[in-house]
Amino acid sequence: MAFKIGLLGLGTVGSGVAKILLDRQGRHPLLGEMEITRVGVRSPDKPRDVDLPQNIFTTDLEAIATDPAIDIVVELIGGTDRAYKLIMQAINHGKHVVTANKAVIARYGAEIFTAAKEKGVYVMIEAAVCGGIPVIQALKQALGANRIKSVMGIVNGTTNYILTRMHREGGDFEPILAEAQKLGYAEADPTADVDGLDAADKMAILASLAFGDRIKLEDIYCEGIRQITSTDIAFADEMGYVIKLLGIAQHTETARETALDIRVHPVMVPTSHALASIHGVTNAVRIEGEPIGELVLSGPGAGSGATASAVVADIINVVATLRANPSNINLTMGCTHQHYAKVQSIADSINLFYVRLVVLNQPGVIGAIGTCFGQHKVSLESIVQKHIHDGMASIAVITQKCQESNFRNALKEIGELNAIDSIPTVIRLLAA
Amino acid sequence: MAFKIGLLGLGTVGSGVAKILLDRQGRHPLLGEMEITRVGVRSPDKPRDVDLPQNIFTTDLEAIATDPAIDIVVELIGGTDRAYKLIMQAINHGKHVVTANKAVIARYGAEIFTAAKEKGVYVMIEAAVCGGIPVIQALKQALGANRIKSVMGIVNGTTNYILTRMHREGGDFEPILAEAQKLGYAEADPTADVDGLDAADKMAILASLAFGDRIKLEDIYCEGIRQITSTDIAFADEMGYVIKLLGIAQHTETARETALDIRVHPVMVPTSHALASIHGVTNAVRIEGEPIGELVLSGPGAGSGATASAVVADIINVVATLRANPSNINLTMGCTHQHYAKVQSIADSINLFYVRLVVLNQPGVIGAIGTCFGQHKVSLESIVQKHIHDGMASIAVITQKCQESNFRNALKEIGELNAIDSIPTVIRLLAA
Repeated sequence: MAFKIGLLGLGTVGSGVAKILLDRQGRHPLLGEMEITRVGVRSPDKPRDVDLPQNIFTTDLEAIATDPAIDIVVELIGGTDRAYKLIMQAINHGKHVVTANKAVIARYGAEIFTAAKEKGVYVMIEAAVCGGIPVIQALKQALGANRIKSVMGIVNGTTNYILTRMHREGGDFEPILAEAQKLGYAEADPTADVDGLDAADKMAILASLAFGDRIKLEDIYCEGIRQITSTDIAFADEMGYVIKLLGIAQHTETARETALDIRVHPVMVPTSHALASIHGVTNAVRIEGEPIGELVLSGPGAGSGATASAVVADIINVVATLRANPSNINLTMGCTHQHYAKVQSIADSINLFYVRLVVLNQPGVIGAIGTCFGQHKVSLESIVQKHIHDGMASIAVITQKCQESNFRNALKEIGELNAIDSIPTVIRLLAA
Repeated sequence: MAFKIGLLGLGTVGSGVAKILLDRQGRHPLLGEMEITRVGVRSPDKPRDVDLPQNIFTTDLEAIATDPAIDIVVELIGGTDRAYKLIMQAINHGKHVVTANKAVIARYGAEIFTAAKEKGVYVMIEAAVCGGIPVIQALKQALGANRIKSVMGIVNGTTNYILTRMHREGGDFEPILAEAQKLGYAEADPTADVDGLDAADKMAILASLAFGDRIKLEDIYCEGIRQITSTDIAFADEMGYVIKLLGIAQHTETARETALDIRVHPVMVPTSHALASIHGVTNAVRIEGEPIGELVLSGPGAGSGATASAVVADIINVVATLRANPSNINLTMGCTHQHYAKVQSIADSINLFYVRLVVLNQPGVIGAIGTCFGQHKVSLESIVQKHIHDGMASIAVITQKCQESNFRNALKEIGELNAIDSIPTVIRLLAA
């Protein structure tokens, strides 16, 4: 008996999924027990490069989500509200759901998993985070023995592509973004990627699985890469760092049990760090756990084939479980979170900072800056003046670990000093 | 109801497993449904740093493997024959087995998985390869949608530690091995590690899962790192390579369907390659599949905590499945191979080579070497003479892709030339 799959959407990822299921030789034997029964699309008559019978196409996606003959609904239409509605319909009609939709899961995960639990169905989300990299599986199953300490990653390929090119070419953000858009590596509206929102969606999902609590998206501090300049990248390079947009989720050092530190922002990463050598559109996630230590998973974070690989892996898991036992949920595949995490505010977080200041080239400036940081309990690692030009100098400051609010208060006062022209960049830093 | 676990062995890994199961808070909730019921050890009275009741210890390991009350037998005694016997006893008594024993699985996998299939029990082996890295899971489940093209990895921490130190310090093999032994990174008898036998065990297991056929250990070509000298490492470094001991398994280029190319030997890896930056005792596996592309998993390949993490992950998987359904096997967790892979002989394999020759410093030598390679259809990428000393010169040759047997025939003839003093090193090479 074949399990009947209803496919919502036949775009890049949907076509990838269909191609895998139509060309089974050499893949997992369970693919032989799956059948694409219906496909929901906007334009059924559009020519497509997958060989599916015309009569299984429909524009009525709701009819698929509620079709009693369908076992598994695979949601690949993207967007939030309509996708959410379809997923809930499918669940309420007792169907298992596989989705690649990070936006829906990050926003409506609580409602979706509560409904799934009630109905006793699986909602599988491997493809929603980092494409083909099996990071959801790792957090749900393979690392089950561990207490997770931190999850840190390059989870957005577009920004990593832009930053990689900025590093290699010494170019600035805007022209490289424009080129990335031409080449199809960035969307026409790049906001979700370059402002870190896409990464925040993914971190909400990863942190929720890693730490066992639900995360509200609005609790995630989020800062993109628009402010990064070639000057900062050159400074970073000189000091042995590369600038990466990282998602970070970790228990706070001071109050491990009570608050989660979760954010997305650029970070100066020491070149010796595992994430420093992840280039271009590649994604990578570093997970630290007790007792395992450090695990790094890297691979293609997007694209038709990689994302389809994760979607089909989820379908295989559901089919394997249903086949063995159609009535009881396997607890390594479900989601049992009930509470929202208490999230630490970014002001309370502990960080190292790199800050670049443009100052009047006059005596006493470095002293004034150093004193001001000191008065706010911010110890400095280094303070270096360079690039004197037209009576102005660039100063690069690196702090030791300090509370973010203290650093910000110091910086506000420094900004008001007469000798300070501007403070173009602040980037948090990972200790070498 | 708790699932009853019988632990065979309470050494480094066994203690790690016990510690996790005795300290559940913050780990997977299913740990609450497991109970260590019996522990088999050699010396029950030895003081131990895990808090288990004295009355569950026994020296009679067979009694545990056959105990009707035990659900899951966890084999962590190491070695081959006795462990194999205990595993088979457990299977024949209807118990599920979790093992970290690569040697047993690489040698007796066929018998073990056949018996397990017959009895309808799971034999889980995540901990047998690369410690905490979930590479078995990736090949069995997460990459199920893919046709695997190649599996390539640094799967032995001891040799990677030695090679890393040789690279960093410019030292030679023997003294660094001696230090590694002192520090506990290498065994008193280092043969299994430095001659590549341990890596071959692991590659047999990985290749079997990746390509769906059983592998005979004796079919794996195996070459260790004893021949590597500081001179070769310096040459490699100059040319932009690092020397790593790699396990490689891939379909042959010429006859994809019929033969598997599987071997363990040192490789000159371009510094830009994902495996080049894996240092020290860390393990890493690079899997290439269609459609996913390239996935790299890296982490601790050995050690109490990391290996115990994998053992407990396997126990969690078995418990989750048994709990949902005690009678039908989940097909993503079993092993269904029936046939042995046809393995290509190393003589037929296609490689690039680096070879270092010591020659008399006289005119015509480079020409003679080049001609000899050419007569055997081996095209050269580069041939460079350096380090002239006492009338002798070192010559580094890099070939293009060629058949191994042609290369070896050429090298044999070259070795007989009057101007050739010796051919100290031959290392295969990955194209940059």
